[in-house]
This record gives sequence, C-alpha cells and structure tokens, in this order.
Amino acid sequence: MTQAPLHPLDQALQLEPAGEHRFRGHTSQAYWNMIGPFGGATAAAMLQAALIHPDRLGDPSALTVNFAGPIAEGPFEIVARPSRTNRSTQHWHLELLQNGEITTTGSAVFAVRRQTWNCGEAVMPEASAADTLPRMNGFAPVKWLGSYDMRAIRGAKPSSAPGTENPDSLTQFWLRDEPARTPDYAAMAAWCDTFYPRIFLKRAGFVPAGTVSLTTYFHADAATLAAVGHDHVLASAQARVFRQGFFDQSAEIWSASGELLASSHQIVYYKE
Amino acid sequence: MTQAPLHPLDQALQLEPAGEHRFRGHTSQAYWNMIGPFGGATAAAMLQAALIHPDRLGDPSALTVNFAGPIAEGPFEIVARPSRTNRSTQHWHLELLQNGEITTTGSAVFAVRRQTWNCGEAVMPEASAADTLPRMNGFAPVKWLGSYDMRAIRGAKPSSAPGTENPDSLTQFWLRDEPARTPDYAAMAAWCDTFYPRIFLKRAGFVPAGTVSLTTYFHADAATLAAVGHDHVLASAQARVFRQGFFDQSAEIWSASGELLASSHQIVYYKE
Repeated sequence: MTQAPLHPLDQALQLEPAGEHRFRGHTSQAYWNMIGPFGGATAAAMLQAALIHPDRLGDPSALTVNFAGPIAEGPFEIVARPSRTNRSTQHWHLELLQNGEITTTGSAVFAVRRQTWNCGEAVMPEASAADTLPRMNGFAPVKWLGSYDMRAIRGAKPSSAPGTENPDSLTQFWLRDEPARTPDYAAMAAWCDTFYPRIFLKRAGFVPAGTVSLTTYFHADAATLAAVGHDHVLASAQARVFRQGFFDQSAEIWSASGELLASSHQIVYYKE
Repeated sequence: MTQAPLHPLDQALQLEPAGEHRFRGHTSQAYWNMIGPFGGATAAAMLQAALIHPDRLGDPSALTVNFAGPIAEGPFEIVARPSRTNRSTQHWHLELLQNGEITTTGSAVFAVRRQTWNCGEAVMPEASAADTLPRMNGFAPVKWLGSYDMRAIRGAKPSSAPGTENPDSLTQFWLRDEPARTPDYAAMAAWCDTFYPRIFLKRAGFVPAGTVSLTTYFHADAATLAAVGHDHVLASAQARVFRQGFFDQSAEIWSASGELLASSHQIVYYKE
C-alpha cells in the first residue's frame, strides 16, 4: 500500500508541537510569493496553530494577522496562546517568529456557533458559471498562484494601457485550491488573501505593494465549508481609497450556492 | 485664572505611566454603556496608550480590538508594547487588564505617511447638511450617546412595527463629539464604534448583542483630522450577514468635504 501524498496546503500547514503554546513549521515552496511566503499561507498557518491547540474551543469567527517583517525561506515558530476562554468564545494571541524575532503578529476569536435567526443581507454578485470561464495564467515568479485554480469574471489583471487608470479596483473570480481540496478554516484564511494588490488594477501596472494588516470574519460553520467540496467559490475584492502609501481592500468569499462564507479586510502598503 | 475643564474624551483618555509598556486608566461615566464602558471608548484608550508611548513611530494606520471579557467600573491597566519597529512602520501589542485578568486584547499598526499617487475610489453618500437635521435622542440608560451629537440621515432607529424586518441594516448619521472637539486618532477610533447594533435595525427591536472584534483603518493624516475641526462627519454602517449568533458590520467615516477618514469593520455577537 502507498500513502497518498499530502496536499500542498496540508504540507504547508504541518506544525509540530514545540513546547507550551508553541509550534514549529516550515515555509512552503508551493505557496511562495516573489521574495517571501504568500501572506495567505502565513495567515493560514497561524490560524492552524490555534486550530490544533489542545485547549481550542469552538471554530474561528475572526482572525487578524499583522505582517510586521519579512519571513525567510525555512523553519519558523508560531506562538498560539489563549488570552481568555469564556463559555462560548475564546480569544487567541498569535505570533510567528524566525530566529527569535517576531515577523508576524495576530489574534483570533473562536466561538461556538448556535442556531439563531439568520439573514443574508448582502447579495452574491452575478457571474457566469466557473466551468464556462478559462483558468487564469499565473505570473512566472509567483509560485503560489499555481496552487489555485482562478477563473476571472472581472478585473483579472490590468486591462488598460500602462499609464492609464482603471475606473475601479473591483476583481471577481471563481477560486478553488489546485489540486482541488475541500475547504476548512485554514484554507479560507488563505483564500481571503488571493487577490493581487488592488493598485495594480487601478493604475494598470505593477506598483510595489504588500499587505500590512489582514482581518477575516468567518461566517460559515464547518459543515457549510465541508459542503463546498471541490466546487469553486466566488471571490470578490475592491478598494475604497488609496492615500499616502496605503490602500484598503474589502473582500467576500461566496459559495456557488450563494452563501457568504467569509468577509475579509486589509490595509496594504504601496510605494509611489 | 481658572483652568478649562478637560473634555470628557480627554478625561477618558487620561493614562498614567505604570511601568515599562504599562499605563493606568479609569473607566468614564461619560462613556458608560448599559453594563460596561462603550466599546469605542475602550478602543480609544488602548490606541491612546500607543499614541503616548515614548517609543511611538508615526501615526495609526490599523487598530484591532478584541472584546474578550467584561470591564467593570473602575481602574484598569493597558499594556502597549511595540512588537516590532521598522523604518517606517511599527507594530503594537495591546492588552487591557483589570485585577490582572485580560478583558481586551488588540494590535495596532502605526506608519509614517508619505506623499504618493492618491485616489478616492469610494464615493461619499449624499446627505442633507447636518444643520438641517435634528439631533437624535439617546436612550436613557446609555450614557455615552450623550457624549455625541448625532443627526440621523437614514436608519436612525428601528422604524418598522416590532416583529417585522427592515429590508436593510444601513444607518447613516452626521456625528461629532458633544461638546464639540477637534478629532484626533483616538476620537476616530471611538467614532467607528458609535453605531447601535445592526440587528436592532434589521429586526426592528432590541436584541442582546455585543461587539466581539473591531478593526479600524485610518485613512487620514493628522493634518486632515485637525482640519475637520468642529464640523460633523458623515458616519455610515451596514451588515452583510447575520448567521448563527454573529453578524458583521462595515462602517465608513467621511469628512463633510468628502474625504474618507476611516473605514472600520466588526463582528458582533447576538442572541436569538
């Protein structure tokens, strides 16, 4: 008997216990960006540390990750410590360190979901079915794009002539892991960071940029995530303002059946 | 000569050094909610600790505050510790404690703003001028509402008959401190939490609810905030989804001249 190889995301999420509230991991070539790991993979690994912690209560509701410094290829340590555990919510302190230096900080809120009155107020964008759209090509040096199957609905990449500006920064695409993998909370944390910087679209070209702080709200329970299976989800993102070296981005991840699975916000540094 | 009394917000923000990276403060009656402090005042005090820290670099760009447990009337301690300081950004670890127990956790990113290409993509909502609208009445037990001058444009309070649902959860009002006070970053942190829970509007009535995690992005530099002076700002907030005991809220704060000063997101617990 041979064992099936681990999915690249499960490989990237492999964490070994390394003392109280500490876990040891390693950067992944499958989720490598240009000069460091894909931020979504870092967010996923930090959330994973809380997910596998023996004291975990409930499922993720909120995750904030602050990208404080560069992460080099190689091993890292994650600190995941419950700051406070209540009856139905749990607050986590998160840090990622390399060589004893903090590269990434964060926090998470876990919660026990309950049956309540529910209402989806936001409406899923209309889009052609994923299988009618071509898969987007990646950019050669950006390896993590190869770990996703993305099918652009709108705003795939800068479509204006260089030097002109696009009227908006709205991107929408169908998204799943490549190879396909049924999503869990860690995968969702990564999905929320799969949008290239909004300023590329707005300014129709490359501008040095990097996420400074990322906050994701998880709106789906584990059963809803599992029901997504190998289907694509619809991912949508747009900025509100670009000013003095920073722009924001708000994103949504929808199931094909129209449930809002996550909303996510970030503030991004840009140069020029 | 008599000294002018401190503005209630400045009173609420008074923090005394209490050891390395530690500050001592006290809850404020002017910003009291029903059974604890107004969350916006707590967020403002936590940001203030970083703002007055001797090692501070730059101005706030992002703030996340997680409301982990109840805060009682009385003194508290805030820990504000730089996790990492770079050339132009600084990452803060924040905690609020009472009697040695963590009630609130958080993080902040400070940054040195630079002149860059700028663009406001989001558009300010249209609204009648603040001075043409009546000041909203507070609710008797909620003292902090008296510390604000709010003039409803839309969604002031549940307007349907109890038991019916409103089609959306959008609230817009003009807002300033009462008495008037030129805003700074701490005031802005509080402003972003001045919306009553979206579920009150959606369900047209009172539902037990409380913010779990709040993230604010500051888009204005100090000079832009100072230029607001005693003018009202336009505050807007809406939810995307209410599910299994949690709903989200995204909010915007606009200057009367049309600049987006802050965007802010939160996840809120609700019962039933």
